[in-house]
Amino acid sequence: MAVTLKNVAELAGVSRSAVSRTYTEGASVSVKTREKVMRAALTLGYSPNALASSLTTGRTKMIGLVSNNFHNPIFLEVFDLFTRGLQERGLRPLLVNLTDETEPEASVRMLRQYSVDGVIVASSTLKPGFARAFRDAGVPVVHSFGRHLENPTVDVLGIDNIAAGRMAAHTLIERGYNEVAFLGGPQYATSTLDRETGFVREIAAHKGISCTTSFASAYSFEAGREEMLRLLASKPAQAYFCGDDVLSIGALSALQTAGLRVPEDVGLIGLNNMEMAGWANINLTTISNPLVDIISASIERVAALIQDQSIPPQTHRFDCAVVERGTLRPAPRP
Amino acid sequence: MAVTLKNVAELAGVSRSAVSRTYTEGASVSVKTREKVMRAALTLGYSPNALASSLTTGRTKMIGLVSNNFHNPIFLEVFDLFTRGLQERGLRPLLVNLTDETEPEASVRMLRQYSVDGVIVASSTLKPGFARAFRDAGVPVVHSFGRHLENPTVDVLGIDNIAAGRMAAHTLIERGYNEVAFLGGPQYATSTLDRETGFVREIAAHKGISCTTSFASAYSFEAGREEMLRLLASKPAQAYFCGDDVLSIGALSALQTAGLRVPEDVGLIGLNNMEMAGWANINLTTISNPLVDIISASIERVAALIQDQSIPPQTHRFDCAVVERGTLRPAPRP
Repeated sequence: MAVTLKNVAELAGVSRSAVSRTYTEGASVSVKTREKVMRAALTLGYSPNALASSLTTGRTKMIGLVSNNFHNPIFLEVFDLFTRGLQERGLRPLLVNLTDETEPEASVRMLRQYSVDGVIVASSTLKPGFARAFRDAGVPVVHSFGRHLENPTVDVLGIDNIAAGRMAAHTLIERGYNEVAFLGGPQYATSTLDRETGFVREIAAHKGISCTTSFASAYSFEAGREEMLRLLASKPAQAYFCGDDVLSIGALSALQTAGLRVPEDVGLIGLNNMEMAGWANINLTTISNPLVDIISASIERVAALIQDQSIPPQTHRFDCAVVERGTLRPAPRP
Repeated sequence: MAVTLKNVAELAGVSRSAVSRTYTEGASVSVKTREKVMRAALTLGYSPNALASSLTTGRTKMIGLVSNNFHNPIFLEVFDLFTRGLQERGLRPLLVNLTDETEPEASVRMLRQYSVDGVIVASSTLKPGFARAFRDAGVPVVHSFGRHLENPTVDVLGIDNIAAGRMAAHTLIERGYNEVAFLGGPQYATSTLDRETGFVREIAAHKGISCTTSFASAYSFEAGREEMLRLLASKPAQAYFCGDDVLSIGALSALQTAGLRVPEDVGLIGLNNMEMAGWANINLTTISNPLVDIISASIERVAALIQDQSIPPQTHRFDCAVVERGTLRPAPRP
């Protein structure tokens, strides 16, 4: 037979309201009363049912965490930071792995069925309409690592990928490279398209620098390696800005296989500053993606939207910076 | 106003039971009726509430997925396989990141509050009692990557770590190494303790082979690198069996920093065969951990326990095998 709140109150010798307050976050209850309640609850094996209580509060304290490229090692850090950040606020992540799905309908339906309080779409490859579908269905949503739009229809939190592309171009120019290239991720990814735009624009603003672009089929080691091996059939550029770090590491391995030295023969710069970029046997020069700040702000924002869904959508831009390691030559002396 | 099942039935021109069957897995309903229902549901914006219906069925279709080392890259594959496998069965993973917690009480309480149908503990470092606490609380549970006990109190699914240690020792002996060492993960991890046991026993069964052991502070790149740098203050062994792949890659980078060639000067063998072990610029010889099979069987088993909690706990052992790459010298000719 299920143990009820009333049973606990009777055994603890306190009011039912006192038991209820013990299990309500932020409610006032004396230490002594709480101890009595917890002892009685332990004896009886009582635990308040979050889902049943959600039917009265309207809150499940569950957040749908939707993502789609579990093979990019950056997601290790992303999942770690999101789950810890949500847990610290008493929220629980219901994880959705989209695998090859690019349309939002099934996820929207499923997460509404579970009455999640809000949704975080964590992806740089989904089109902006994906996150908007949750808002259209009345679910508070933020898009982390999404594309910044002039008139955002949902909150987008991430770096400015166009500015990051400019930063990469600026860095290569500063190091004296004059034949440069962009080796991007998949062409459907807004992050890759925006990084390319920024990179190409900044190069074009400088005379005498040649620039080519090409795209790998995915943000993955194998895709980066394959694309660089293909490029090495012709004369390589002097330096490459790769769409992200895992692509860079694939490209790096292709250059090593071809007997080229990095940075002496070819330079490389990545983006994300994921853990493996700092491994001593990788040692990749890259551009940081401030995940800690982006993820903490994403959680704050979805929590605010759960309180008040009428807050107008905003774009939240985060700064990135060059992380100097061993895959670009130093700037020449003036 | 909330759209009800009755509204959908009226618009679709079908019985309420037909609507209900449309949304019940495995229930019989004609294609034509299903189409009518889906069209009416779409028009009205109806979606059945999984949590409300759980109050009658007693099933939430949520599975607690509990883990504790999000920094080991092997968990990328683990999360990908678990989320996809659960989703294929219509189950949803509620992800729990233990960070530094080693006691089960808080997780048991939380997951009971959410009325998860079952729990998968995915960790090789938690003590066996962790998973048992869920069973004691009446929650169907399996422990993936846990320690095999003679009289298991919960289902444990994973490789036999003692046998894996023996396999590593056997491989090093076969290659003609006679000064070998075990560089383990943290000493509280059952996986490391069992791998050490198997390794040391197998070496001891052969005459004339010296064997030393030491332990890194965590299953991480930095811990592996630090421990190997410390070992290099003295004369290194001829070959190391490292507790897992991420430790091996850290150790490999320390050897490279010290100017030692792998495998010419020092040999290395890891365990897990995670994605990065196959990266061409890592190219680690290792022992496979058949994650696909273990995870698929773990999901099968927890699903079976949800149907019938009286099934006695079993040990499910999976075979591993040496994956030949570039960090061990070949076997000498006879």
